[in-house]
Amino acid sequence: MRAERVVLWPDREDVFLTTYIHDDSSEYPSGRRRPAVVVCPGGAYLGLSDREGEPVALQFAAAGYHAFVLNYSTFFGGNMAGNFDIGATREGNPHAAFPGPLLDLGKAMLTIRANAGRWLVDADQVAVCGFSAGGHLAASLGVHWPDLFLAEALGAANHDFRPAGLILCYALTDYLVMKRSAELIRKADPRLIDLWHLSNLAVFQKPEPSLDELNRVSTVNHVSEQTPPAFIWHTADDDLVPVSNAFHFAAALVEKGVPCELHVFENGPHGLGLADAGYAGKPEQVNEPVRIWLQLAIAWLGRHLPLA
Amino acid sequence: MRAERVVLWPDREDVFLTTYIHDDSSEYPSGRRRPAVVVCPGGAYLGLSDREGEPVALQFAAAGYHAFVLNYSTFFGGNMAGNFDIGATREGNPHAAFPGPLLDLGKAMLTIRANAGRWLVDADQVAVCGFSAGGHLAASLGVHWPDLFLAEALGAANHDFRPAGLILCYALTDYLVMKRSAELIRKADPRLIDLWHLSNLAVFQKPEPSLDELNRVSTVNHVSEQTPPAFIWHTADDDLVPVSNAFHFAAALVEKGVPCELHVFENGPHGLGLADAGYAGKPEQVNEPVRIWLQLAIAWLGRHLPLA
Repeated sequence: MRAERVVLWPDREDVFLTTYIHDDSSEYPSGRRRPAVVVCPGGAYLGLSDREGEPVALQFAAAGYHAFVLNYSTFFGGNMAGNFDIGATREGNPHAAFPGPLLDLGKAMLTIRANAGRWLVDADQVAVCGFSAGGHLAASLGVHWPDLFLAEALGAANHDFRPAGLILCYALTDYLVMKRSAELIRKADPRLIDLWHLSNLAVFQKPEPSLDELNRVSTVNHVSEQTPPAFIWHTADDDLVPVSNAFHFAAALVEKGVPCELHVFENGPHGLGLADAGYAGKPEQVNEPVRIWLQLAIAWLGRHLPLA
Repeated sequence: MRAERVVLWPDREDVFLTTYIHDDSSEYPSGRRRPAVVVCPGGAYLGLSDREGEPVALQFAAAGYHAFVLNYSTFFGGNMAGNFDIGATREGNPHAAFPGPLLDLGKAMLTIRANAGRWLVDADQVAVCGFSAGGHLAASLGVHWPDLFLAEALGAANHDFRPAGLILCYALTDYLVMKRSAELIRKADPRLIDLWHLSNLAVFQKPEPSLDELNRVSTVNHVSEQTPPAFIWHTADDDLVPVSNAFHFAAALVEKGVPCELHVFENGPHGLGLADAGYAGKPEQVNEPVRIWLQLAIAWLGRHLPLA
């Protein structure tokens, strides 16, 4: 396995791909190009969850895919063990603002394509798998890849950074749902409204964006016939990103005739990741009924990005 | 196994339960009462699909549950091999009109309770599994079981016919969605609008019910905190009952805090049933990615109606 860090921008050490690239072997059809999955961990655009990075990439690698974890621009950097409740006084990374992380992901796709020959990647068969805010990022590339602004910003042809599929895990797709939810739970748990404001500082550079601004980054509003097929899962009682994010995105795909698969599990807090004991940060992150999402996702990959 | 036909109304031979009741044995904890599943086949309230009856009951029986298939009132009787394109001239069964089949299902629940001792059923742990129109029927009991009109019509206490859970397979739950869909596809396939009108004759005794009438039988409008937990599946490209029926019902459950699990598979025509080769009527009814619904449903049953 080629496990290395590939920096995406010449002047930025914080944005990079970590590769999980299969060794070639003369026991396979040598020189065969494999499809790949780019994993985008979540973290409210404030940081990146380790639990949603390497452990997930290893699953796709074990299933026969090349895999990558993308460290995209976040407001504070670091992982989820950092303290996010630090108020708005500490200065954050302006690259975390939309569409900063989307440019990172587009650049990642171009970088994979540029290295496709030596890495033996089928560059037209690269899916993006994202969790929570990383799911928002994955979905954003899914809906915006045909847009002129991205081609101009990346200096590349749109189809060169088109994802072949989306795997969206408790993804944020509808910022209006998030706003309503943040307001509803304001009394129950004031920390959540703080998180909403803080994440908004990262994405919008202001704590209370306008409805227009929220609509602009809501991927549900930009689904088109060109959005790639999606595999989506969520828990019905997600306590941070309501399941209607999944309902709305899936309904938008169905309306446009885009293939989609949706699995809503009954129970589980936000941020389950693989939901198994090997990568749980606390006991409630082990969830037997949810674990099957990975098997379902790999079966879905097998149909849309077949290995042979 | 006790496999027998139990007629539900003294003067009606067409409405009956078929039982799939486990033999007791001194090798088990003898006298143990098992939970049960009542299966309601689909058929647009015009007839009943054999593919959604016994084959499904046998799965639940094999998983350790007592099982029943309900032959409820339909407009023409018979199975799906009958010809439904026969226009409105042939006289149909008036008992098929709402809430006729719902009374049949309520009576089935009461009959199971009345026989719970000799059949060794845990009468408080009886789920209802319905397909298509049978899913509408199952969901109707799920939302209406607390209603006075049912208690009065059945002459029983509401909780005596309360289902412990719902398994809804490509169920019709929102008649407004159906009306829009029927109008949209009118040009593409005129037979579907005929089916819509014919099924309406069965349910409403008129081909074009008013919006009020459609809203009355739309189970999405009647979900409450008293609706039991539900397991729901559908295909995203269902060509007869749009997947938004599933989205809307699941969203209504989530809004009321009722536990729900939803699986939307990417492909498959309406009426897949078990989706396996053993019970397919035509090749497109074999669907490998969809088959897992049964395993997921049995796991869900194991959590909500545990066997021990």
